[in-house]
Amino acid sequence: MMFADDLDHPLAHGGGLAAARRLFTDAPEPFIDLSTGINPYSYPLPELPPDLFTRLPDPQALAAVAALGAQTYGAPSPSHVVPAPGTQILLPLVAALAAPGRAAVVTPTYREHARAAALAGHAVTEIADLGAAREAMLAVVSNPNNPDGRLFDKDELIALAKRLASRGGLLIVDEAFMDIGPCDGSLAGEVERHAIVVLRSFGKFFGLGGVRLGFALAPPPLASRLAATLGPWAVSGPALAIGATALADRVWIERTRTRLIAAADRLKALLSNAGLEIAGGTALFQLVRAPAAADLFHHLGRAGILVRSFAEHPSWLRFGLPGTEAAWTRLQIAVAAYADTY
Amino acid sequence: MMFADDLDHPLAHGGGLAAARRLFTDAPEPFIDLSTGINPYSYPLPELPPDLFTRLPDPQALAAVAALGAQTYGAPSPSHVVPAPGTQILLPLVAALAAPGRAAVVTPTYREHARAAALAGHAVTEIADLGAAREAMLAVVSNPNNPDGRLFDKDELIALAKRLASRGGLLIVDEAFMDIGPCDGSLAGEVERHAIVVLRSFGKFFGLGGVRLGFALAPPPLASRLAATLGPWAVSGPALAIGATALADRVWIERTRTRLIAAADRLKALLSNAGLEIAGGTALFQLVRAPAAADLFHHLGRAGILVRSFAEHPSWLRFGLPGTEAAWTRLQIAVAAYADTY
Repeated sequence: MMFADDLDHPLAHGGGLAAARRLFTDAPEPFIDLSTGINPYSYPLPELPPDLFTRLPDPQALAAVAALGAQTYGAPSPSHVVPAPGTQILLPLVAALAAPGRAAVVTPTYREHARAAALAGHAVTEIADLGAAREAMLAVVSNPNNPDGRLFDKDELIALAKRLASRGGLLIVDEAFMDIGPCDGSLAGEVERHAIVVLRSFGKFFGLGGVRLGFALAPPPLASRLAATLGPWAVSGPALAIGATALADRVWIERTRTRLIAAADRLKALLSNAGLEIAGGTALFQLVRAPAAADLFHHLGRAGILVRSFAEHPSWLRFGLPGTEAAWTRLQIAVAAYADTY
Repeated sequence: MMFADDLDHPLAHGGGLAAARRLFTDAPEPFIDLSTGINPYSYPLPELPPDLFTRLPDPQALAAVAALGAQTYGAPSPSHVVPAPGTQILLPLVAALAAPGRAAVVTPTYREHARAAALAGHAVTEIADLGAAREAMLAVVSNPNNPDGRLFDKDELIALAKRLASRGGLLIVDEAFMDIGPCDGSLAGEVERHAIVVLRSFGKFFGLGGVRLGFALAPPPLASRLAATLGPWAVSGPALAIGATALADRVWIERTRTRLIAAADRLKALLSNAGLEIAGGTALFQLVRAPAAADLFHHLGRAGILVRSFAEHPSWLRFGLPGTEAAWTRLQIAVAAYADTY
């Protein structure tokens, strides 16, 4: 694989642990990866019988996961739900559901949205507020937003979708971090009535980013189009089996919501107590604004802790949740030492 | 999920074991699925550590699988190789690499090619021979062909690619069944010099259809475009780990080639000895032409054996390889009983 130009180049993401190890060669192990927004308390893997790997994924298992997705996320019916091998691969496909035209991406946000919209043939504008999206054919909003946790008002989003629909346009709402709330902020239930496509991530909340499972919730004609493009076996056999077990586990889901909210409070307190300014966040990450963010990034790296930096916002650092008590302690010591030094 | 119209409806495929059980309620178990062209002697699954499921797929693991793919399939370099979650999902994406125009699909063949080309905006013509593809913008050839095993001459394919390239067009060669040979028939080594994209399937030869791993081999600018559309984490962590182990296992690959060739000879003999006419095939399946194919399909179904029928070719049945001695015996008894009856 090679990337010919900027448009083709997937932007820097979290999760680059190998690169961090090369950068911080003397860091203590295990390296702690706080650079992603993935739940570290992952759903326990069920037994995976060999025929999940050997046979083609079962169409009935796919339909069952679509039905569970509708229930879990609150889509009107399974016909509104398209399971995919992660939401990332859906980004250019959902962007292509609108005729090429002006695409407005509410920023700062996950950079892949602008790249995917451009790949789908749109002229992409980055805008700061919903109002500026009114003249676009495609509007993309992440709600809650990544990395600042900004929440958008449901009624305002619906009003925008109506406005876009009146001109044949479409609103995409990326709800990758909506699982922990505010749950009544989701537009999943609105995809039938309005020109809205909602994206939901399985891997983030369930802590299973390697499985590759995500969902588009869309009006049935658009859902059909997406399903046709993905084809009958886009989601692997193991992903369907894991998804079926996890999405049906209401007890684990509720307990994990509570656990993540507590962990988020703990992370906020830990960072604030070290004198760091919290600029926003969700249950799965906190965004710190620090004038010397690059120093802090390197200080943490030398302590074997990888956080997410942002080339275009040099004062920002995003912190995911530590997964073990040892990791919490190392983070606390590292940020306290930083506070003492600077 | 719903399918709004014929274009959106993935066509009937093999592997519909649940449907077969509903159709043949009194059939003996275990039902034997010979309806796909997947190697029944599957690659033994390696250990899959939990972090393959929890962490985002590692970019270095993806690069390693691309490098192994280049080596195994004979592509000029890893920059010519795009790993994907199966080749099926690549079909509309590779079709979209050519500007919308006339697409010629050499038929009869795997029906998804025509559907995918239409989804990508092409006007699809089904043609019987390479010559009729000369005026198209996109030509799609399966080599060896499915389901009849027809082989296309390498020099003729290159001549067609040159002709298409001179007009800005593209040749797609689906080599899903090329692993067992004739290996010198592959166009994998030609993708740099010509406007050719080759598709290779991991799941069929390695007997791991549920894993979802496949490859596009393409000139680097087209490979970049495909990789950009798929995004950084299209292939799951487990698929990358399994692919890395299996593609590097030269001993297993060679032994399996030999084993599959012997199994194919055995299947041909078994069917011929029962008086059935073999219309073609590859090491992974045989195509039978029988005037009373529907009767034979039902006869086998009642014996708990599912084969592949073709709505548009009612005299055809495709037989995959039995995976166990018990399955070979049941198939032999069932076709012999059929030969005695009719």
